[in-house]
Amino acid sequence: MGRVLIIYDTRTGNTEKMAKLVAEGARSVEGTEVRLKHVDEATKEDVLWADGIAVGSPTNMGLASWKIKRFFDDVIGDLWGEIDGKIGCAFSSSGGWGGGNEIACMSILTMLMNFGFLVFGVTDYVGKKFTLHYGAVVAGEPRSEEEKEACRRLGRRLAEFVAIYFDGKKELLDRVRKSPDKFVD
Amino acid sequence: MGRVLIIYDTRTGNTEKMAKLVAEGARSVEGTEVRLKHVDEATKEDVLWADGIAVGSPTNMGLASWKIKRFFDDVIGDLWGEIDGKIGCAFSSSGGWGGGNEIACMSILTMLMNFGFLVFGVTDYVGKKFTLHYGAVVAGEPRSEEEKEACRRLGRRLAEFVAIYFDGKKELLDRVRKSPDKFVD
Amino acid sequence: MGRVLIIYDTRTGNTEKMAKLVAEGARSVEGTEVRLKHVDEATKEDVLWADGIAVGSPTNMGLASWKIKRFFDDVIGDLWGEIDGKIGCAFSSSGGWGGGNEIACMSILTMLMNFGFLVFGVTDYVGKKFTLHYGAVVAGEPRSEEEKEACRRLGRRLAEFVAIYFDGKKELLDRVRKSPDKFVD
Amino acid sequence: MGRVLIIYDTRTGNTEKMAKLVAEGARSVEGTEVRLKHVDEATKEDVLWADGIAVGSPTNMGLASWKIKRFFDDVIGDLWGEIDGKIGCAFSSSGGWGGGNEIACMSILTMLMNFGFLVFGVTDYVGKKFTLHYGAVVAGEPRSEEEKEACRRLGRRLAEFVAIYFDGKKELLDRVRKSPDKFVD
Repeated sequence: MGRVLIIYDTRTGNTEKMAKLVAEGARSVEGTEVRLKHVDEATKEDVLWADGIAVGSPTNMGLASWKIKRFFDDVIGDLWGEIDGKIGCAFSSSGGWGGGNEIACMSILTMLMNFGFLVFGVTDYVGKKFTLHYGAVVAGEPRSEEEKEACRRLGRRLAEFVAIYFDGKKELLDRVRKSPDKFVD
Repeated sequence: MGRVLIIYDTRTGNTEKMAKLVAEGARSVEGTEVRLKHVDEATKEDVLWADGIAVGSPTNMGLASWKIKRFFDDVIGDLWGEIDGKIGCAFSSSGGWGGGNEIACMSILTMLMNFGFLVFGVTDYVGKKFTLHYGAVVAGEPRSEEEKEACRRLGRRLAEFVAIYFDGKKELLDRVRKSPDKFVD
Repeated sequence: MGRVLIIYDTRTGNTEKMAKLVAEGARSVEGTEVRLKHVDEATKEDVLWADGIAVGSPTNMGLASWKIKRFFDDVIGDLWGEIDGKIGCAFSSSGGWGGGNEIACMSILTMLMNFGFLVFGVTDYVGKKFTLHYGAVVAGEPRSEEEKEACRRLGRRLAEFVAIYFDGKKELLDRVRKSPDKFVD
Repeated sequence: MGRVLIIYDTRTGNTEKMAKLVAEGARSVEGTEVRLKHVDEATKEDVLWADGIAVGSPTNMGLASWKIKRFFDDVIGDLWGEIDGKIGCAFSSSGGWGGGNEIACMSILTMLMNFGFLVFGVTDYVGKKFTLHYGAVVAGEPRSEEEKEACRRLGRRLAEFVAIYFDGKKELLDRVRKSPDKFVD
């Protein structure tokens, strides 16, 4: 069984909506167990349990929120060096397009890499002129079908990578590479 | 007279359209002289001439194009250390939202900072859920009014900063700070 | 009078030592008033007061500490959009070289740009194979002369840029550009 | 057999020296086949062949060199979307500490993520105050034992991750996590 953890912070509820869609996407991969946790409730045990972790945050001043930062600094800081090789990814909701949501995703990936994680973005296009190359990003709440699908696709890809690399389902790698959604319009 | 240079690369013509709008925005600030150059035509003399420089590129693999990179590495590489303190900013067109246009802007700002430039993004919102905190970003060509206005606003802000800091028009700083467009919807 | 604020967080005391050296560098520019504040003590009024701000943090998981993040998110969050055009820079102490101190500086510059600041690094070399292109960085405490000088140089450059752009001392710009330390060995 | 490709650009020969050490580290993992290629000689077929790829560049203006950029833009651009899920990492030599080598590594990781790669840094310390959290970094040529070991460790970790995730040698993951070098002095 692949084990996927989704940790998120939320201010307006928008990032929480994204997190639920990421969870939905992860669950769509057969044999995946999913935990969905607000950053205030997530624990070291959750992180130790997971093979793959998606971390979401409102875009605050171009980076993850201070609560997400505190989680990595203080709550799981002493796991550092003991959890290398897990798989990680990011998602973020900003106030507007051009408001830093991609850069906030990069700040999350920076932290995950610091813990020795393998991190990724998704090459697929989930709609016209809409993708998630460095994590799922939305301005405001995920409302359109493509915004929702970006979140689901992130969770699905995370669960797929966990299935491929932790559960040995190598045949999935071909499916990932031959996604019908790999186009640039 | 404030002197603003706009350098761009373009593959499909989208970034060139952005560049022309950035130039339009810069010209809207009284007393600003503007040069608009494709990266193949820009020279060292252009860079030496300018007080402020906006650099635009298609988002290619999440960064500026290799031609933009080559310009900084090879064409103006030996100006390094002699042009500190100029003002710089960035713009980029990606294939889709979430496709790396913000991160491509950051790669441009990284190069400009390496030359000792003062770099900036813009806090203003130019439409509903649309801003340019790390540079003007568009998916595809600038088509909607807010996409066009993001480009113009970037050029205008660059020319304003040049007028404030190089030409001593300090009164403009108040206008920048009290922009009616500083809201998050 | 140029007004320079230095805000820092510190865990082991290393970043505090850097902060004091940054302050020393800023004071070396005639006509500069300097405030040095731990992040727990810095206030909105300090930020409103300053023309130039240097922000320092231990490198925690590749980014600024959560306390520095909380300062920008919560303490001065409602100044957003009203303090554009100030000048900012960064410094950071990591556990080791290659440990993320440059990337932590970039995370600080990201926040400062989000507030509309003009941000910069320094092209000068302050010793053999030692510079501060994205902010002053040290592994552990600033111990060698070049590590100390990197911190001082950052503060001095910040004060010089404030003098040039806020106090109209344009003649300093030539000095900045003709620094004897602009070499790559 | 795990297949590891090392691609590098070099100006002074320093990054080439790093590349050879990375190759040496990769070969130290039993059952690993290694290809070492200058960017001018690397081909699409090399990239298709590899399970894991380390990319090295001189730090040029804070990013990878334009030749490395051109390789991703033009030489292998049409593999985009067909090589997802490979494992990637970065290394860079800058003129000095604080000169952008970490940020150049991030620019390489940005490109690799854009291709759907899983990218990583290394938590291990390879000497006193010396690590490679975002890739192996050196100022000038790799001369000290810790600088050399950083390069070797990067290659070894890449080969270990390839062995774990592509060849199913799960027992290696424990060894990675219990490295005696995971300390902060």
